[in-house]
Amino acid sequence: MSGEKRQIKLGAFLMTPGHHVAAWRYPDTAASEVLSFRFYKKLAQTAERGKFDMVFLADSNAIYEKYPEAVAQTVTVRPEPLTLLSALSAVTEHVGLAATVSTTYNEPFHVARKFASLDHLSGGRAAWNVVTSANPAEAQNFSKDQHLLHSLRYDRADEFLNVVTGLWDSWEDDAFVFDKDNAVFADRSKLHTLNHKGKWFSVKGPLNVARPIQGHPVVIQAGSSEPGKELAARTAEVIFTAWQTLEEAQLFYRDVKDRLAKYGRSPEDLKIMPGIFPIIGRTAEEADEKQALLERLIPQEAGVSLLSNLISFDLSPYPVDGPLPDLPELDQINGGKTRFTLLKDLAEREGLTIRQLYQRIAGARGHREIKGTPAQIADQLEEWFVSGAADGFNIMPPYLPGGLEDFVDLVVPELQRRGLFRTEYEGSTLRDNLGLKRPVHAAVQARNALPSSS
Amino acid sequence: MSGEKRQIKLGAFLMTPGHHVAAWRYPDTAASEVLSFRFYKKLAQTAERGKFDMVFLADSNAIYEKYPEAVAQTVTVRPEPLTLLSALSAVTEHVGLAATVSTTYNEPFHVARKFASLDHLSGGRAAWNVVTSANPAEAQNFSKDQHLLHSLRYDRADEFLNVVTGLWDSWEDDAFVFDKDNAVFADRSKLHTLNHKGKWFSVKGPLNVARPIQGHPVVIQAGSSEPGKELAARTAEVIFTAWQTLEEAQLFYRDVKDRLAKYGRSPEDLKIMPGIFPIIGRTAEEADEKQALLERLIPQEAGVSLLSNLISFDLSPYPVDGPLPDLPELDQINGGKTRFTLLKDLAEREGLTIRQLYQRIAGARGHREIKGTPAQIADQLEEWFVSGAADGFNIMPPYLPGGLEDFVDLVVPELQRRGLFRTEYEGSTLRDNLGLKRPVHAAVQARNALPSSS
Repeated sequence: MSGEKRQIKLGAFLMTPGHHVAAWRYPDTAASEVLSFRFYKKLAQTAERGKFDMVFLADSNAIYEKYPEAVAQTVTVRPEPLTLLSALSAVTEHVGLAATVSTTYNEPFHVARKFASLDHLSGGRAAWNVVTSANPAEAQNFSKDQHLLHSLRYDRADEFLNVVTGLWDSWEDDAFVFDKDNAVFADRSKLHTLNHKGKWFSVKGPLNVARPIQGHPVVIQAGSSEPGKELAARTAEVIFTAWQTLEEAQLFYRDVKDRLAKYGRSPEDLKIMPGIFPIIGRTAEEADEKQALLERLIPQEAGVSLLSNLISFDLSPYPVDGPLPDLPELDQINGGKTRFTLLKDLAEREGLTIRQLYQRIAGARGHREIKGTPAQIADQLEEWFVSGAADGFNIMPPYLPGGLEDFVDLVVPELQRRGLFRTEYEGSTLRDNLGLKRPVHAAVQARNALPSSS
Repeated sequence: MSGEKRQIKLGAFLMTPGHHVAAWRYPDTAASEVLSFRFYKKLAQTAERGKFDMVFLADSNAIYEKYPEAVAQTVTVRPEPLTLLSALSAVTEHVGLAATVSTTYNEPFHVARKFASLDHLSGGRAAWNVVTSANPAEAQNFSKDQHLLHSLRYDRADEFLNVVTGLWDSWEDDAFVFDKDNAVFADRSKLHTLNHKGKWFSVKGPLNVARPIQGHPVVIQAGSSEPGKELAARTAEVIFTAWQTLEEAQLFYRDVKDRLAKYGRSPEDLKIMPGIFPIIGRTAEEADEKQALLERLIPQEAGVSLLSNLISFDLSPYPVDGPLPDLPELDQINGGKTRFTLLKDLAEREGLTIRQLYQRIAGARGHREIKGTPAQIADQLEEWFVSGAADGFNIMPPYLPGGLEDFVDLVVPELQRRGLFRTEYEGSTLRDNLGLKRPVHAAVQARNALPSSS
């Protein structure tokens, strides 16, 4: 990468039919298509047309029925991410395919196998967003009474990730020889059995899929808590994170990049991509109108429910036009701790009511909301990119497909004109495009480290 | 279906690069493409060109390293079936997509969700082949010391299937109303929370995917043991089974069909499709030559290993040109019991050596092998179909893509000429084509059963 100009990396975070909680009520949104392949095909091909590095899918293993009215007012059904991305791999050629899969209620063998398979079928475009499950409703779908404590979830996630990357290295890259004459399909000396026995998992291996095309699918993480940052510094290649202000984002960026050296990693081995919720207008007025319309369309119960979920505290008993009630201390929260602090601070700083706070976060959910003309949007992305706050952005369109199409048709050309974004894909794999090194197989690394015997 | 002529149902069982253990050494086989999407796309589109009801994928969650030489001589790496079928759903329009997923090391919520997602994305073409895991190597990949006993595996499978079908009914078919004006996305009265608490699983639900397009994806089963037959009679819609002789197949067909009435089901609610391994030549001599070539190409260790796996007994210490050793009693076998008996009887009946037995089963692995010209193949299928032994067949091509192309280009037209097979797909879903009823939602069924109040 030396000599080449550093450019912005872009993810298209496809929460259908849009990130805004009222997206499905937005006039042009095809709300009834949230389970239709045609809709997702169009979105993925639009992202590819815009030269996005990847499409990115969140995940949830439950419907949160705690707020019954909200269930009627929000979109609770979507395709499972790996199923969907596998289908999309067949109708795209370049764009990366990033799926969120939780380490809390899965088995590492299944996860290693599915991502390795997707990486092969897509020609090296798979990425795994490694998360832990903080939603108590998920536990009840997996024969557990309650979800794991925050610290235990990270402990399990750490070991889970070790097992998965170990399984991806079951075979060396050149293990398969296909020698028909001598009846040798595989060179057995290049097969490595994991034999993992740990605190959470015993997994013998080997994996019944060849080493992925990318070596390992790209590993993404989102946690911004202390254990989350440490796990990311050791293992993540992309961090998807949520910051409201430039200062916070810069602080986080430096903090995480500074942790890399102790794990033998360089700053460019990890791309930091904050979430961005863009409201794009051809004029500033049009952007304001779009925002106002989205806010008007928020059903009240859905707004309160969204906020309650984000701070892991039930706000439904409190007056919606009053202030936040006294909230528990941070160490009592067994959910997303960073998000809790962020929203609590925001409400206090600006003196917001419950309604005002949910209106504020009903799109971006704590991520950075930017608004304006294509040039104004590009200005704001450029500022963070050039001032040490971001290597790229995970774009969260308010409504779909329009919000993504606007970004691709209006903002991407502006970024390209400024030389901040690619005009063609750099390579054939997601790693190539993100500028990430392909991991060398552990056994090859060990052999290369030996003094030469010749 | 009344008045219409009963026709053969066909599955294309795509074990790549062919069912024969020596398939990868066969001259035209692209052995290096076993992980390439291009290869599978060609196979699925060939099956669709041949108007097959479905493509069918087996599964294994381990490499069986017990016989190390065999690992070097056989194909041990393939894409995970659901990942692959999801990708294939995007490049096909009519053919059904059947994936094997074990109930032994999975969670019902994940399985319900993935198949429901695939059913939506494919427009109603998903099928689940429900199996239990009999391979001890699989247990060790899922933090278990040994696999479950045969009877416990079926007990778990039974409850697993109940949970999955219950989750598929989380929403009624018309639960989603997309009413933008009144802010009603879903009619909550049509949401049903499962609240399952059983011996093996506690799963609250509801599922975060709408009711599948087919109501439920088609349920396939393969077990032919007593608990397997009973589970199938209660729940299966297709049985994939292995029989060598017409008499055995007829006996099984009658046995299972007779069990349906006690569960309130009709004979046409369950399609019985034995596996068929066809060696097709333009002349009988060409078919003989193909068979002889395949037998010559079997690597010895791979042959012994295959046979050992099939009978759950290690034959590697015994002389390959001698007879089978004394084998354990059936109740000592914690693997596929039906297959054990079938192969033991075959060896005794014909006095086969270990080598002769593995040559005999190296393609079909206990399924019926048929050989000859297209007309001779069609004769043999027709005989079983018209004499109460089969509703259709799961076709197991010896090598790929050639073995499937020969069936589509040579045998299908012959079956169509005889009026035994469709010339166009009957409907848009797999159920339509198989002639299976769409299951009515449990809650709707209950409401319809009430006396009318008007």
